Amino acid sequence: MGKRNLIRDRVRVVLVAPRNPLNIGAAARALSNFGFGQLRLVNAYELAFREARSAVGASDVMKQAEEFATVAEAVADCELVIGTTAARKRQLHHPLRPLAEGGKRLRRGNSRRVALLFGSEKRGLSNEDLSYCHWLIRIPTREEHPSMNLGQAVAVCLYELARENAVRPAAEKTPPAKGAELDRATEMLRDALRLSGYCKRGSEIEDEKLRRLIRRSLTTAEDAQVWQGMLRQILWKMRQ
Amino acid sequence: MGKRNLIRDRVRVVLVAPRNPLNIGAAARALSNFGFGQLRLVNAYELAFREARSAVGASDVMKQAEEFATVAEAVADCELVIGTTAARKRQLHHPLRPLAEGGKRLRRGNSRRVALLFGSEKRGLSNEDLSYCHWLIRIPTREEHPSMNLGQAVAVCLYELARENAVRPAAEKTPPAKGAELDRATEMLRDALRLSGYCKRGSEIEDEKLRRLIRRSLTTAEDAQVWQGMLRQILWKMRQ
Repeated sequence: MGKRNLIRDRVRVVLVAPRNPLNIGAAARALSNFGFGQLRLVNAYELAFREARSAVGASDVMKQAEEFATVAEAVADCELVIGTTAARKRQLHHPLRPLAEGGKRLRRGNSRRVALLFGSEKRGLSNEDLSYCHWLIRIPTREEHPSMNLGQAVAVCLYELARENAVRPAAEKTPPAKGAELDRATEMLRDALRLSGYCKRGSEIEDEKLRRLIRRSLTTAEDAQVWQGMLRQILWKMRQ
Repeated sequence: MGKRNLIRDRVRVVLVAPRNPLNIGAAARALSNFGFGQLRLVNAYELAFREARSAVGASDVMKQAEEFATVAEAVADCELVIGTTAARKRQLHHPLRPLAEGGKRLRRGNSRRVALLFGSEKRGLSNEDLSYCHWLIRIPTREEHPSMNLGQAVAVCLYELARENAVRPAAEKTPPAKGAELDRATEMLRDALRLSGYCKRGSEIEDEKLRRLIRRSLTTAEDAQVWQGMLRQILWKMRQ
């Protein structure tokens, strides 16, 4: 039991820009069914959120759901951020893993806080949302009809995560970096690159690229600290 | 490939006395997502069935769903009938298998037509419905909140049935960085750090630390290229 509880305690389910109160409620119900406690909503349609929260039979999960204005804030305390997608070609930017494989990886990983991101009903996760992700999970749906209902997608993912009693590595020798630290490192690198003329101000594509690069490169909390220290000093020198 | 198609072709999903058109539509959508074609409804609330069928975006599965008056008729052409339940004590009458185990048994079985029964939203399957079943499947939900939403339960069961033969996307081709490239990046980073005063010249321990850091951080050839480009530009600026 102890082992199984771990993955449940570690995962935060993050719904990005959900629009339909029924879907929000269904997602919360799936969390409750499978024993996950932590639901987060980013930029939810306000009315939908209130309706879902006040619905008859709303679970404790729904009542305790947290709201955030941005993805960055919602994942700031998470060491690993996983996006979900129906697309097959996102692997251009991110490793894309089938749910069964990704679930195994999550259960065996040593991240203490994992954010699992689900996009809005209409459009899924945007490229900006995805730029906060370390890698992506795909539920193996049919090519002709890949896009799942939001509540069902959440249920399937949580079922898979809770499916097996995972074997966890003995010791966490290298705690991974948290989102907020990665963001600080990204900012410093971006500032250095702008000062050097490597990239221009206000290019969203550049920002997303840097965010992904930093997430691939700074894998542990310790390394993130070291990189921050180096970049800070380099920046200081460049500004002189 | 053959086997994958088989389980999908062999299973009939049977909703017994469903009441909510949204749930019927969601069940149909899950069938479509996972490539199952055969939806059957027993004693559905007539209005709910019509609404689900005429809903915008109703899948082909929904349009081709068959109606039956009784469970007996709905499973008449099936060799194996499996009930789904949230209860833990039905095994008094039937073998009760966790979904993962039951799914494996279904995939390996040789029944050409399998009926998978789901009960109504409020009451699940009645004892009479269950009396048509050979054995039962239970989705491993939490004891304190076992009962799933109908559409989500169907999605989770079909995901499990289709799970093992899920297609893996083509292998990701991300060749790792070669030693020489890592060394070049290490040199550039070291030069930048010396120029900034972060570390001193000729410290072997610093050199080794940097080499290890670069090897942990620049994991692919592509990323090593990007980091080299960034560092080169930063160095150029620092030397001005």
